[in-house]
Amino acid sequence: MKLSRIDHLGIAVKSIDEVLPYFENTLGLKCYAVEEVADQKVKTAFLKVGEVKLELLEPTSPESTIAKFLENGGRGVHHVAFAVEDGVANALAECDAQGLRLIDKAPRAGAENMMIAFLHPKCTAGILTELCEPALH
Amino acid sequence: MKLSRIDHLGIAVKSIDEVLPYFENTLGLKCYAVEEVADQKVKTAFLKVGEVKLELLEPTSPESTIAKFLENGGRGVHHVAFAVEDGVANALAECDAQGLRLIDKAPRAGAENMMIAFLHPKCTAGILTELCEPALH
Repeated sequence: MKLSRIDHLGIAVKSIDEVLPYFENTLGLKCYAVEEVADQKVKTAFLKVGEVKLELLEPTSPESTIAKFLENGGRGVHHVAFAVEDGVANALAECDAQGLRLIDKAPRAGAENMMIAFLHPKCTAGILTELCEPALH
Repeated sequence: MKLSRIDHLGIAVKSIDEVLPYFENTLGLKCYAVEEVADQKVKTAFLKVGEVKLELLEPTSPESTIAKFLENGGRGVHHVAFAVEDGVANALAECDAQGLRLIDKAPRAGAENMMIAFLHPKCTAGILTELCEPALH
């Protein structure tokens, strides 16, 4: 697998409105997009620092995995997303061949018009790991 | 405050030897340095993806904060370190003036010849946050 960069950090928050002043006023970053991802039951807000995006994730339903993460005491970084150079499907096939546990067997649509797939943290040093690439049109 | 990039992600692991094959063989990254930070009671291993370093942190003593993080069920990303452009001391003064809770009142020496200081996750959207800059010689 060839990774080009960390695409984004997914950060679980109870309320985007509550934490945005910290990111904007203290850290000096700028929120450039807000998007609702209906099938993940989250509202997202994006900021960028260097080449990496920070994706704030606020649950819009108690059924959201982010709501459950927060309920179970999870805080801060929820997942790390790596941009792959050779395609998410190829990367997944490699991981599968190496015996890693896949959460997604095939790439699916994520926020910001990306194709994404998750690997299970049991196989990734405890880091919930997303592989992603821009969707083709 | 002006951030130039995410300098590194601190990743808590029980054993660097156990997880390094995942980072090197599956993700295709390369470990370029191993360093012991005696006063933090950790062994560190560094890899790089794009402009961001991954700092694997293995406790060398049960007294290490990393050992306690793992004992308490913590996994994966332990902290996020931002490189500041205008100096860690200035950044800390700004945070202090804004009422943020500081873990370090003044910059101190960290791994890789950096000056570092931590902000408390209560004030930083739940993310244990490090500010850092290269030490002057």
